[in-house]
Amino acid sequence: MTDAAPPARPEARSPRGFADRRGADVAAERRIVARVSEVYERWGFEPLETGAFEYADALGKFLPDADRPNEGVFALQDDDEQWMALRYDLTAPLARFAAQNWETLPKPYRRYAFGPVWRNEKPGPGRFREFVQCDADTVGSDRPEADAEIIAMACEGLRAAGLSDGQAVVRVSNRKLFDGLFDAGDVTDPVQRLTALRAIDKYDRLGWEGVAALLGEGRLDESGDYTKGARLPAAVTATIQAFLGSAGEGSRSQTLDAIARIGGLGAAGEAALTELSGIDRALASMGVDQAAVRFDPTIVRGLEYYTGAVFEAELLLDTTDDKGRAVRFGSIGGGGRYDDLVARFTGEATPATGFSFGVSRLASALRAAGRAEAARRGPVVVIVFGEADMQAYLDAVAELRRAGIAAELYLGRAGMKAQMKYADRRGAPAAILLGGDEIAAGQVTIKDLDAGRALASDLVDNEAWKAARPGQQTVPRGALVGTIRGIIEASSITDGAHE
Amino acid sequence: MTDAAPPARPEARSPRGFADRRGADVAAERRIVARVSEVYERWGFEPLETGAFEYADALGKFLPDADRPNEGVFALQDDDEQWMALRYDLTAPLARFAAQNWETLPKPYRRYAFGPVWRNEKPGPGRFREFVQCDADTVGSDRPEADAEIIAMACEGLRAAGLSDGQAVVRVSNRKLFDGLFDAGDVTDPVQRLTALRAIDKYDRLGWEGVAALLGEGRLDESGDYTKGARLPAAVTATIQAFLGSAGEGSRSQTLDAIARIGGLGAAGEAALTELSGIDRALASMGVDQAAVRFDPTIVRGLEYYTGAVFEAELLLDTTDDKGRAVRFGSIGGGGRYDDLVARFTGEATPATGFSFGVSRLASALRAAGRAEAARRGPVVVIVFGEADMQAYLDAVAELRRAGIAAELYLGRAGMKAQMKYADRRGAPAAILLGGDEIAAGQVTIKDLDAGRALASDLVDNEAWKAARPGQQTVPRGALVGTIRGIIEASSITDGAHE
Repeated sequence: MTDAAPPARPEARSPRGFADRRGADVAAERRIVARVSEVYERWGFEPLETGAFEYADALGKFLPDADRPNEGVFALQDDDEQWMALRYDLTAPLARFAAQNWETLPKPYRRYAFGPVWRNEKPGPGRFREFVQCDADTVGSDRPEADAEIIAMACEGLRAAGLSDGQAVVRVSNRKLFDGLFDAGDVTDPVQRLTALRAIDKYDRLGWEGVAALLGEGRLDESGDYTKGARLPAAVTATIQAFLGSAGEGSRSQTLDAIARIGGLGAAGEAALTELSGIDRALASMGVDQAAVRFDPTIVRGLEYYTGAVFEAELLLDTTDDKGRAVRFGSIGGGGRYDDLVARFTGEATPATGFSFGVSRLASALRAAGRAEAARRGPVVVIVFGEADMQAYLDAVAELRRAGIAAELYLGRAGMKAQMKYADRRGAPAAILLGGDEIAAGQVTIKDLDAGRALASDLVDNEAWKAARPGQQTVPRGALVGTIRGIIEASSITDGAHE
Repeated sequence: MTDAAPPARPEARSPRGFADRRGADVAAERRIVARVSEVYERWGFEPLETGAFEYADALGKFLPDADRPNEGVFALQDDDEQWMALRYDLTAPLARFAAQNWETLPKPYRRYAFGPVWRNEKPGPGRFREFVQCDADTVGSDRPEADAEIIAMACEGLRAAGLSDGQAVVRVSNRKLFDGLFDAGDVTDPVQRLTALRAIDKYDRLGWEGVAALLGEGRLDESGDYTKGARLPAAVTATIQAFLGSAGEGSRSQTLDAIARIGGLGAAGEAALTELSGIDRALASMGVDQAAVRFDPTIVRGLEYYTGAVFEAELLLDTTDDKGRAVRFGSIGGGGRYDDLVARFTGEATPATGFSFGVSRLASALRAAGRAEAARRGPVVVIVFGEADMQAYLDAVAELRRAGIAAELYLGRAGMKAQMKYADRRGAPAAILLGGDEIAAGQVTIKDLDAGRALASDLVDNEAWKAARPGQQTVPRGALVGTIRGIIEASSITDGAHE
């Protein structure tokens, strides 16, 4: 079919912002998903998988800074002219699913989900247009215990994934604190409110000066971009400043007391304090440490749809980037209460709360925290000397696999030296040599590649290395599995960097 | 933010051909993926994950019956005007990845992958536009041992997923058999060849009469659609008939002998026999049963890109459909050798072979084969009597979760009766009742919901049922975990149909 080939060869490249992930990286992310799933199921959350596409109107426009239609999403028109788009998170599909199946679902409905989400944004270093999220949500409960459960479960999930106590903190606040403050200050325009919330959300990065500019006329950033401000009344801005200043390192109830003392919260703000108190009581009942979950009024979350409690999980580690510079890792997940999202469809208020984290981001965090686990070893490689003894090679491979040891026959056509190099690049713990002499004598030669690597770095003299044949032993054929087991157990390689 | 709500409410529905999957269905598919992954890694295959989008030119046009640009795929234009499309299988992305990274990959490169693929086709019952595939491929080996390994590993993967010996067969043939036959009969037009191959691929469904029509002038099917035929010379059609008739139930080498006796195979056909014989030898060395893997010249596979051996895995079970009618389950996966797919990018011939199956389809097959496993039980539900005793409820939940038992607090606001109904619909093995009296007495009442269900079906008299309080016991609070363990172990529920 040679003439079916296109006239010009396509270039082997993938679209920007879409990554290929191999071996150890894939394994690390799968481990996170498996362990977090185990925790979430033990807490009574049921797995749910929805399709990649939703109708654009069902998805809504809740991405920050995305006011144009289909901005930020990958959208296309179906055969019947309806616009559909790839999901940009797992919350919007849950709201659609819950609304569609509300009558038949057990209520409250607890579900967790993981899978890819897509953002049609400008990709950059570490910024992808496709990434895996993992969410847990409870739909149909207005209880503070529901929020507390989500927060406490997120903490247990992060620990199960590999973070130690003290390596992460979940900061919690409540959107209604600002609702009350806006009400009290006569800020009624929803666009103005959202602009102000998104400004406050940048407190962590910009500090008070930057936020103050964005709450006022606007701000010119270092790149020369001008962002229009929320133009809040000065009195409201002053209360916000006091507010943000109340974030301390005290206990949760101490922080609530400090916020209450500021005053000017309006009815919504008082309701927020009551809700946060309920969450605090439930967290205490669940034995959640004061250091693991804090109240912090600087937490806002950029998404428009939050209506009550908001959470943000942050890694408490200074780490280093690729160039060895110290960087703060920052947020690894978040969530909150979104009581209006199901009502978009049904018209009936349906309280809901949830937490979400990026799986690749958590994997990076674990690497940064020095908690990456030993990569699975590569397979044992059986070397091919010639066609005649194929049966003996295949027998050895089969015997190792039956014993639960990853093993393979070298399937190329290259010589001995290239085969040994191949085994090394595969991260093989050992290579199996079954030459004619060994087969005739009922023996097998096993090359311990880790021992070989270690010795090679000591023996600078190439001839001496050859003479020593480091890590090579000839044993009776019946001792194959036992010898390989010994080599794998002795190997203390802790990374997968064999390639 | 009530005035941020859209003027009209969107309808809660998902695009046609995209399914939501819950609880037990999700768990069944994950179990398959986990078990097959374990086998594939033990056989030396490395996991790989690529992005959902590929450039359209990199993806190529290899879907059957898709001759128009972007036909059959979900495509859209990127910001830079380049067309990209969601992958329609996992083979095309692998070819792109291998071509892009060929210099740095260990060669031959063995990888497996699973994930969603998308086909922009007309959806129908059981026919989705998104489904999960699981592939394993070896790139860079022309050895028949590579094909044999893929076939043998597919058999072990299917067994690990839950199929018994004898429930599936892999049928193997070689495209070059037909290449040789076309060469010998002077059929040189590649379009004519592909039309003929796709006709032969329908032998299973249409029988010889139907195939003969498609190899000749064309065929009018029952729905009134006319398919243009391949217009092969009569002599070639006659040889094909003899060919298809040689598929027997004999051993692999007997089938090869029968094919050889037909003759007229040309040089390519002779090469096919040599390759199949090499595969047979390797399969025998790997201990693969004659009944598990057969040679069968009726196997063609519809995809254009196959160049040598082709495989098809079929379920050997007559099963029943939703309406109780007997149906043949048919193919659950397949694959073959595609030596030109990497060369599309690099211009250098790179032999490759692989096997793919649909994960949902295998899950259906396992259900049909009566091999679906017991669904995981729902969580134990702790009933809420009032706010005052929340601490006692949360303590019980925490204690059960710590013991590894899935448990939850009822988080709604409904009364006792609704809570018991909720526990039942969640598939809970038990409900925990901690009333004021129980708490004061250091006790807990446990309702065994399975026992309750069983007894309820015996006791027709509602009053008698109430008096008997089936499956309800009050025990010391310290006996909570032990009692629940006993109930879960005794429960012999084998399906998840609680909703």
